[in-house]
Amino acid sequence: MLEAQIHSTNFDFERYLEARRKLVEDRLAEYLVEQEPAKLWQSMRYSVLSGGKRLRAMLTLAAAEAVSVNNATTGATANLSENALQIALPCACAIEMVHAMSLVHDDLPCLDNDDLRRGKPTNHKIYGEALALLAGDGLLMLANEVLIEHTSKSVASANLLAVALELSRATGPSGMVGGQVKDMEFTGAADDKFDIATVESIHAGKTGALIRFALWSGGKLMNGTEEQLTSLYRFGEILGLAFQITDDLLDVTGDAQTLGKTPGKDEATKKATWVRAIGIDGARIKLSEMEAEGVALLEHSALDNRDAPVLKALLKYAIHRKK
Amino acid sequence: MLEAQIHSTNFDFERYLEARRKLVEDRLAEYLVEQEPAKLWQSMRYSVLSGGKRLRAMLTLAAAEAVSVNNATTGATANLSENALQIALPCACAIEMVHAMSLVHDDLPCLDNDDLRRGKPTNHKIYGEALALLAGDGLLMLANEVLIEHTSKSVASANLLAVALELSRATGPSGMVGGQVKDMEFTGAADDKFDIATVESIHAGKTGALIRFALWSGGKLMNGTEEQLTSLYRFGEILGLAFQITDDLLDVTGDAQTLGKTPGKDEATKKATWVRAIGIDGARIKLSEMEAEGVALLEHSALDNRDAPVLKALLKYAIHRKK
Repeated sequence: MLEAQIHSTNFDFERYLEARRKLVEDRLAEYLVEQEPAKLWQSMRYSVLSGGKRLRAMLTLAAAEAVSVNNATTGATANLSENALQIALPCACAIEMVHAMSLVHDDLPCLDNDDLRRGKPTNHKIYGEALALLAGDGLLMLANEVLIEHTSKSVASANLLAVALELSRATGPSGMVGGQVKDMEFTGAADDKFDIATVESIHAGKTGALIRFALWSGGKLMNGTEEQLTSLYRFGEILGLAFQITDDLLDVTGDAQTLGKTPGKDEATKKATWVRAIGIDGARIKLSEMEAEGVALLEHSALDNRDAPVLKALLKYAIHRKK
Repeated sequence: MLEAQIHSTNFDFERYLEARRKLVEDRLAEYLVEQEPAKLWQSMRYSVLSGGKRLRAMLTLAAAEAVSVNNATTGATANLSENALQIALPCACAIEMVHAMSLVHDDLPCLDNDDLRRGKPTNHKIYGEALALLAGDGLLMLANEVLIEHTSKSVASANLLAVALELSRATGPSGMVGGQVKDMEFTGAADDKFDIATVESIHAGKTGALIRFALWSGGKLMNGTEEQLTSLYRFGEILGLAFQITDDLLDVTGDAQTLGKTPGKDEATKKATWVRAIGIDGARIKLSEMEAEGVALLEHSALDNRDAPVLKALLKYAIHRKK
């Protein structure tokens, strides 16, 4: 059984990724069963179910398992993990919905004007701009709905309220949306018009906020200690930063077929990226530093040692991926 | 004092509206204090604070007061009302934020492409399409944030979770956003391509869902009985329908200066309206019926008789307004 494997020495990470992706996508498909108005649900389904790494969802699930296994006084590890997965799955799906909606709106002509996403036509290329706009709005609220509706029986109300509040903060003007605005403001800026602090601030919002939330929420749903939640949050900061540096590097060094999108776009549109701020070599050095810091944090944190290998593997995956 | 006046025979409704509008707008301004990124907050402030009737917010406040005063066994009416207002105000503001964001996105070129709103340039005319898009997204999540953050100390967690869940439902694909999509699908349709049921279904989502939520949430936050919540919900259905029929009539019979927007737009764009479905006279008859039904419901409901005059006055205001 997979759960048992995670805790064995021959942990098959590829198989783990595949199983988790399926778990998340099957549940997402359930939450997005076609209803009236059909076109709206088709448009939302199209963007949420069109692939993607599901890294954010996996982080939530792994954080929930780590806290659950660590804090339990009794119970078999596999049962604890399974229970944690079931509790955290709606939240993991909500995060994927928010992530998908951010891509749908980002791709619109008035923002990045992208025709391709993961090798497929973007939402507005298929459904038109108006429906893509409304599908994004719909997904944002559906994410809240799914989180609250499907978690309220398994988690104490106060904890769930805290998670719902943080989802709004991570996604809203002080989080993801704020980061998108900053990103937009610095797009086109000359090299000497921004510095590392600018890039860090853009990405702490644009990609970082949701990744931090993904890790923290998994722990919070399982009633993690303050120490555990602080470690997960910090691990989220590190992983979010590393994820973005990797993205910026792939835009320069990746190839179109593997990426499923055209590389070189950051450079062409003059985005404020890590590569532009500190160069390819600088970005690679920074990335190694983040990797080492993340690994060290896990090894000295209040998270379960038995599950730390999974979080470590997810960090390495976020850094060493090819797309 | 105003609270005392409401329960007297010479209730000054105009003064009441003015005071409530100020109460709501002052609080909205607090929640929207400018932060980084400044342009985003300016854009959100612009649309939320650019006027409007604040009818939805007033409905929440009035429903909260009605339930509070009715269910109390002790306490002066004025104190109970003041307490209810303070508890329901964040929710009322959240509803206004959602309403404002729906107008910002509706006005975008890919949807209604409107240049004017309440006699002022629309958001994207001032801030550009990209920022208007992101300001709408930001407001949607800020609404959730404000509701949870500022209500969690005064309302039991389970009740607040129920309200947060319903806000998402009222706003999302099964509510407001779903109604916008249906509205869009039937815009341009010939007269024989839609019927009363179509128009009713469009508006039950597009304007109805948030108005029903406004009334229901005020009662739920004050821990109303099932009977009270059912009455408020039904009153919301009636008022929402009446509000929309009035809107459709004003588009035909109103004048540009009073409206703050160009009338005749529904006809020009062939929207599926009540006037197109059943004619001006038909719409007026339907409106009288809704008014009578709403008044009768209040008089026979489990809502406090002392506060029913306010809800009745708000219904009449929704129907007899000139803009």
